[in-house]
Amino acid sequence: MNNYKITIEYKGTDFVGWQRQENGFSIQQLIEDSIYKLCSERIIIFGAGRTDAGVHAKGQVANFKLKNHINSDIIRDGLNHHLRPHPIAILASEKIDSNFNARFSAKLRWYEYKIINRRPPLTLDKNRFWCVHKTININKVIEQSKSFLGSHNLSAFRSINCQSKNVIRSINSIEVITKNEEINFIISAKSFLHSQVRIMVGTLVDIGLNKISKSVSEIILTKKREMAGITAPAHGLYLTKVDY
Amino acid sequence: MNNYKITIEYKGTDFVGWQRQENGFSIQQLIEDSIYKLCSERIIIFGAGRTDAGVHAKGQVANFKLKNHINSDIIRDGLNHHLRPHPIAILASEKIDSNFNARFSAKLRWYEYKIINRRPPLTLDKNRFWCVHKTININKVIEQSKSFLGSHNLSAFRSINCQSKNVIRSINSIEVITKNEEINFIISAKSFLHSQVRIMVGTLVDIGLNKISKSVSEIILTKKREMAGITAPAHGLYLTKVDY
Repeated sequence: MNNYKITIEYKGTDFVGWQRQENGFSIQQLIEDSIYKLCSERIIIFGAGRTDAGVHAKGQVANFKLKNHINSDIIRDGLNHHLRPHPIAILASEKIDSNFNARFSAKLRWYEYKIINRRPPLTLDKNRFWCVHKTININKVIEQSKSFLGSHNLSAFRSINCQSKNVIRSINSIEVITKNEEINFIISAKSFLHSQVRIMVGTLVDIGLNKISKSVSEIILTKKREMAGITAPAHGLYLTKVDY
Repeated sequence: MNNYKITIEYKGTDFVGWQRQENGFSIQQLIEDSIYKLCSERIIIFGAGRTDAGVHAKGQVANFKLKNHINSDIIRDGLNHHLRPHPIAILASEKIDSNFNARFSAKLRWYEYKIINRRPPLTLDKNRFWCVHKTININKVIEQSKSFLGSHNLSAFRSINCQSKNVIRSINSIEVITKNEEINFIISAKSFLHSQVRIMVGTLVDIGLNKISKSVSEIILTKKREMAGITAPAHGLYLTKVDY
């Protein structure tokens, strides 16, 4: 079998998410269908991150195995052809060791969460940023963000639908970069709980708006979802890179 | 009369352009309608730049005169309320000297033209960048761009529909900034001919793709539209700022 690794960019707005579902188009399904159109092989692809509905990707990674050998440039261009007009693009494609699995071989996943902090509504950046209208105390956000670094029981920062048995997660890095009215959170970890990045960002914003008086460290210790802040909307979140 | 200056951001994709037209929604009309909803005054607004269909703005400026005095924060927030769900936002509003006219008082107009140079199609940035799939020789583009600086007869760089009697234009500044696969052109002048920025950028790209062998200086001297390159698509162009 020939194992292929592809790097994928998509605008998540109109999809039900990465994973195949009954109720609408998923990125996974559209890529699998395009592979079938290109190679006449019905296969399943494995993604590094199962992004939710509305979440975007600039560097999602997936792999799949084909009986036939196909030049990897043809895979990239052919899939892009069949994926039109959906906002999904294969940025790169390569043949890779047969042991490679996009999900299980991942060493570090990188997410970016993008906010515009201003009073007027968004136009050009609608569905690409979370627009927070009230002024965020950014110094407080930066200071509190550092408390996420390292290993913690993050029960307070996962969706009530999260099915993971292990609730310990290690945040490898968290950076908050501001530029004019933009606030970008760049976060990396080996793996994340369900909605973890969105709840982390929503909590930091609630702290920066003085809606929450507890510190991040205190909230972590409670292990209770209701002590953390809101789940920031999906449309500000990007899966940007996966390290192997 | 009370004269108000407003700064406007919009996504031009679904509009017929800035100016009122019979065949669809214009930005001008939607703002005038919102002013009527807010103030019950039927007035005409004057814009600094009459952007074409598909062209965006991050800093369009307009002015209008009202019989009644209204607090400028209420103008901004009230118009934003009535403009929903159209992708038009009033970024700022101020009361200004009655002699101020957004079009005729303008000293310098700033445009930005945004390109992504890559083989895969756009997803997140569709309608916000011009995607050029073949590799552009960027050094050639930067070098040739400088020939536009100063005053020239720009007959070769205007739409055949351009009605301006004066064809001399002075380019105050032109900068080409590259970052990864992005190429941004930042251009300022007191005024522009019809489609001038798009033809300038289209010509520079054609030169960078070796489709045109003449230099910019040579093309300027011909004064013939057919000697210049293509008109770059509207969706890469932004009116970013107007200086008074």
